[in-house]
Amino acid sequence: MIALFTDFGTEGPYLGQMRAVLQTRAPGIPVVDLMHDVPAHDPRAGAYLLAALAPEFPFGSVFVCVVDPRVGTERKPIAVRANSRWYVGPDNGLLNVVAQRAAEAEWYDITWEPERLSSTFHGRDLFAPVAAIIARGEEPPGRPAQARPADWPDDFEAIIYIDRFGNAISGSRAASVGEDAVVEVGGQRLTRARTFADVPLGQAFWYENSNGLVEIAVNQGRADELLGLSVGVPLTIG
Amino acid sequence: MIALFTDFGTEGPYLGQMRAVLQTRAPGIPVVDLMHDVPAHDPRAGAYLLAALAPEFPFGSVFVCVVDPRVGTERKPIAVRANSRWYVGPDNGLLNVVAQRAAEAEWYDITWEPERLSSTFHGRDLFAPVAAIIARGEEPPGRPAQARPADWPDDFEAIIYIDRFGNAISGSRAASVGEDAVVEVGGQRLTRARTFADVPLGQAFWYENSNGLVEIAVNQGRADELLGLSVGVPLTIG
Amino acid sequence: MIALFTDFGTEGPYLGQMRAVLQTRAPGIPVVDLMHDVPAHDPRAGAYLLAALAPEFPFGSVFVCVVDPRVGTERKPIAVRANSRWYVGPDNGLLNVVAQRAAEAEWYDITWEPERLSSTFHGRDLFAPVAAIIARGEEPPGRPAQARPADWPDDFEAIIYIDRFGNAISGSRAASVGEDAVVEVGGQRLTRARTFADVPLGQAFWYENSNGLVEIAVNQGRADELLGLSVGVPLTIG
Repeated sequence: MIALFTDFGTEGPYLGQMRAVLQTRAPGIPVVDLMHDVPAHDPRAGAYLLAALAPEFPFGSVFVCVVDPRVGTERKPIAVRANSRWYVGPDNGLLNVVAQRAAEAEWYDITWEPERLSSTFHGRDLFAPVAAIIARGEEPPGRPAQARPADWPDDFEAIIYIDRFGNAISGSRAASVGEDAVVEVGGQRLTRARTFADVPLGQAFWYENSNGLVEIAVNQGRADELLGLSVGVPLTIG
Repeated sequence: MIALFTDFGTEGPYLGQMRAVLQTRAPGIPVVDLMHDVPAHDPRAGAYLLAALAPEFPFGSVFVCVVDPRVGTERKPIAVRANSRWYVGPDNGLLNVVAQRAAEAEWYDITWEPERLSSTFHGRDLFAPVAAIIARGEEPPGRPAQARPADWPDDFEAIIYIDRFGNAISGSRAASVGEDAVVEVGGQRLTRARTFADVPLGQAFWYENSNGLVEIAVNQGRADELLGLSVGVPLTIG
Repeated sequence: MIALFTDFGTEGPYLGQMRAVLQTRAPGIPVVDLMHDVPAHDPRAGAYLLAALAPEFPFGSVFVCVVDPRVGTERKPIAVRANSRWYVGPDNGLLNVVAQRAAEAEWYDITWEPERLSSTFHGRDLFAPVAAIIARGEEPPGRPAQARPADWPDDFEAIIYIDRFGNAISGSRAASVGEDAVVEVGGQRLTRARTFADVPLGQAFWYENSNGLVEIAVNQGRADELLGLSVGVPLTIG
């Protein structure tokens, strides 16, 4: 399975062109849109989202990861094999968290080059073809590289995604935090609940979301508006 | 074929995770996104939309239906076989109309349980895996249950969906209504036209839409704005 | 491969129903969403977008093209074979540019008729089934027709699409324009850059986008807002 993880949005012809490349170069291998609204130009938020979402996918899955504000500059393309899943993307930190949480990770500098490389759409021209090669079971088209330094924390105590209901997902895993933890964010101290129905209407709380992350929510309300939350706002957990 | 019918929207990682589950558990079976903007938390609107849309799908199709405001509470998961198609979802009325319109319907209480059931994402953890089992041709993983009472009307004289052009779809089938019917809604009395080009610019009318439902429209205008329509607004048909 | 190219947006049940038709009538043939936000009711903008995007697709691909403001009137359904790819859609100019740029193009009037043809959804009832027939390798279900006159220019010096970052794509190919060309649009004279990183923050420029078109952009800004651009705004290139 090939999974697409980008900040492209779903508008325009961009995803369609990537899908055509994958279909052509890795025929018969299913392609799944994981998400396309990773916070734009924010590889760090993307890195913690990816690390939380990837374990749901079967071993052997190949992720095409494109959050790439410096496309067309000197940043390098890389591939990582971590816990029997593959990740292809730019070397800007986006793949670091999934690698540093893995029992073992192999890094590769991608050396494959397309006949034509546009200056703005490496997702189509470079990352998708490389993912197709790996998904077909071939060797990653590059050379083994040193592991990137794990210089981001294991958990990221900040908001990394706001969903369309205004719930705010953080980069902290509930398992790292403990049942009785109090989360301070947006000037409020929030305690844990199991789910929405367990708190009064309009009250903010935190809970372990379906991917194991600390998520801030309001029963029948918008946490982002009530607490003034946006991507990057820090949490204090204690 | 597996069809997805939800109120999740297309943002975020939710659909991608459901697709990964289906791909893993029912490999080779095509998955089609039917719609993901069913009016949020409104199983009744969803029930009439589903009943209008499902007959377009081939026999044997399995619908994963998730409009589930009470996820994580005591509401039960069910499956229904109606007119040789399968429906999996919460027992909140969402599947009732498609069942009561069918010549025969078999109901099942789902007893299958996943290893891990999140409190907020039964679409991924419960409904998708059960749909995969059925789509593979296995028995529905539950026990036969009594038919739910058909306590909603055969047609629902109210708006159930507004599309992006402002056209307002109702829960009434044109075939139940008659060619000469007058539809009263938003303070106006509307007569039938065959299609947009048959009425003057800016005029409201009703017509039989491509799924057989009474739809309110305005030639080159927005019916929702002109008539003050939103989901739930009642119609009087006479 | 079957590619979908429409102005339907991704909301509602419309694409899902087309996908179900294609899946049923051309089982096993992959379906790719190319784009669904072609400027609404604008076959001319669509024609130049299609002509720029289609060459990325493999030979044998079948495009279902639906930008069809006059659906339900007398306009005819057509199919075109151009450069070993197939295009199915309404005869309103949408397919003309891809045909006139091709070394050779064969035109067909579609004579196939469905059992039931709704007045508003020919995408599902007519164009998708015809595309499925062609994608299965059968003859196009119609009769050879005269080529449509090539009465639109080879390049269209106007904006044909604004993407979600505010970049404005034109219908002019960079290869038709020359490296040193100056593009006048929105009251400014813009010179060429290779990519965003090559110009100062906030400055407008033009560049050859990843599909070979002249695109107007602003480094870390929105070209549509800065220059007052929208679909249809003309360019002067000199």
